[in-house]
Amino acid sequence: MEPLHDFAGLTRKLLSQKIRKRVAVACPNDPHTEYVISRALHEGIAEFLLVADAANVQKSLYIQDAFPESVKVFKVASIENAAPQAVSLVKHGYADILMKGLINTDNLLRAVLDKENGLLSKGSVLSHVTLAQIPLYNKLLLFSDAAVIPKPTLEQFDSILKYDIEVCHKLGIANPSIALINSSEKVNPKFPHTIDYVILKERAANGDYGSINLDGPMDVKTACDSHSGKLKGINSPVVGHADLLIFPNIESGNTFYKSISLFGDANMAGMLTGTIAPVVVPSRADSGNSKYYSLVLACIAG
Amino acid sequence: MEPLHDFAGLTRKLLSQKIRKRVAVACPNDPHTEYVISRALHEGIAEFLLVADAANVQKSLYIQDAFPESVKVFKVASIENAAPQAVSLVKHGYADILMKGLINTDNLLRAVLDKENGLLSKGSVLSHVTLAQIPLYNKLLLFSDAAVIPKPTLEQFDSILKYDIEVCHKLGIANPSIALINSSEKVNPKFPHTIDYVILKERAANGDYGSINLDGPMDVKTACDSHSGKLKGINSPVVGHADLLIFPNIESGNTFYKSISLFGDANMAGMLTGTIAPVVVPSRADSGNSKYYSLVLACIAG
Repeated sequence: MEPLHDFAGLTRKLLSQKIRKRVAVACPNDPHTEYVISRALHEGIAEFLLVADAANVQKSLYIQDAFPESVKVFKVASIENAAPQAVSLVKHGYADILMKGLINTDNLLRAVLDKENGLLSKGSVLSHVTLAQIPLYNKLLLFSDAAVIPKPTLEQFDSILKYDIEVCHKLGIANPSIALINSSEKVNPKFPHTIDYVILKERAANGDYGSINLDGPMDVKTACDSHSGKLKGINSPVVGHADLLIFPNIESGNTFYKSISLFGDANMAGMLTGTIAPVVVPSRADSGNSKYYSLVLACIAG
Repeated sequence: MEPLHDFAGLTRKLLSQKIRKRVAVACPNDPHTEYVISRALHEGIAEFLLVADAANVQKSLYIQDAFPESVKVFKVASIENAAPQAVSLVKHGYADILMKGLINTDNLLRAVLDKENGLLSKGSVLSHVTLAQIPLYNKLLLFSDAAVIPKPTLEQFDSILKYDIEVCHKLGIANPSIALINSSEKVNPKFPHTIDYVILKERAANGDYGSINLDGPMDVKTACDSHSGKLKGINSPVVGHADLLIFPNIESGNTFYKSISLFGDANMAGMLTGTIAPVVVPSRADSGNSKYYSLVLACIAG
């Protein structure tokens, strides 16, 4: 299958699947969230369960009036009740995806992480994956973790890999090339993640992750530019062709996110992983496009 | 003074100073190093002390023949002797800058770091600064440390700041805006560098670093894009206008370097700091332009 080159291809892929996922939205009543919902309804990519507090529910009812077959509205007493209600809809199988509207992220995460009523199964870890459309790269590029785990342990790296490989499969990347990022190619006990990388590669060779190409430690340029790899004399199917970058810590993942966004004119979609259903948590600084394509990504992955 | 927008302005600045620095080169006999030396001689920006081994010295003598007033040649018995000889020229005041040719970086660093005969004074730390010309940024941008210190301690941050502020002054930035980089704005003991940042800001307020604007923790986008800062409601003279970024670890610094180079079409110059004279250590993957402008940067800073 052809790799996806841009977000337009992502939407085409979703529409071709002809399944409209059901999205529970906690507090959908700000202009940004309403834009995403309205665009999704007009493009026919999803159905919505809008969980609105009493003071704002009328706005959601107007949306329901316009798209009666694709929208259900759930009224809760106050904003505090919206996240637990939306989480409950996902947990009990009424929705496939959770999306944050105008509530505090911590507020939503508390409901998501609740031991009894939340969306994280025992043994799972909450992580984050970003999908980037970068003008100077020849396909869409996934990376983790720019937002949630400060410094993954070996087992957290293992979980992140598994979650992200599943996203790759959903995106149609059957045999993903995955780069374990470091500032150099050296395995060095001073940089403990490089020791973890060796173990992850052993597990990959052992078949633990299915059909993937996993290599590293290597830097971002080696992972995404075959010329740099050749200059360094590195021979690996991953070099220059990475589908997925695994960063050693949140500072480097976040720096990648912000750098390609600001200086590489990249657009980004992102979602939480590790939960029983994808969770879309747009941040204030995201563009409308970015928020919309985060929903599209979640609909494909969910 | 107007900020420098690009590397062409950097060369103009150097030429306007009308002082030609003396550059000692260890093993100058590969095509890349010869290109840099030849271009510098034609543009008249520097003089050279070429330290060549017996097997390669003839090539350096040809360069001397072409520019007899600007080139001296020092013959050493073997490649192993080149670095100590070049370091010695700098240490004893015959050269202002040290540059690596076709020898292993470790080989050069051993001579630079030698306790008795090297270039690092007691109490100094070896660090690295990069100067980036990024098409989507409105001025040249400095950052540390993408290459040498894995995870700076408080006192290493302090030293890096002092070295880099001196470079800022040499570049004509009298009152640099400096961003202490993190993945968020939160000071959090889970991220010990954010605690260091608080202390560094106290020292700055105390006047320890002269006239600077120092702020953080903040992410790369907040540091370099005033729109993002406004969205987040952060009010600081640094936000959106950083001259210098200090990264919390080498993984994030290196990721920034590689990302803007590959996806932001940026050009980079770099040099070692903390030594008694700037040291230029081009790496294999650097372009010819990058190597040349690293020399120009060192000539301005040295």
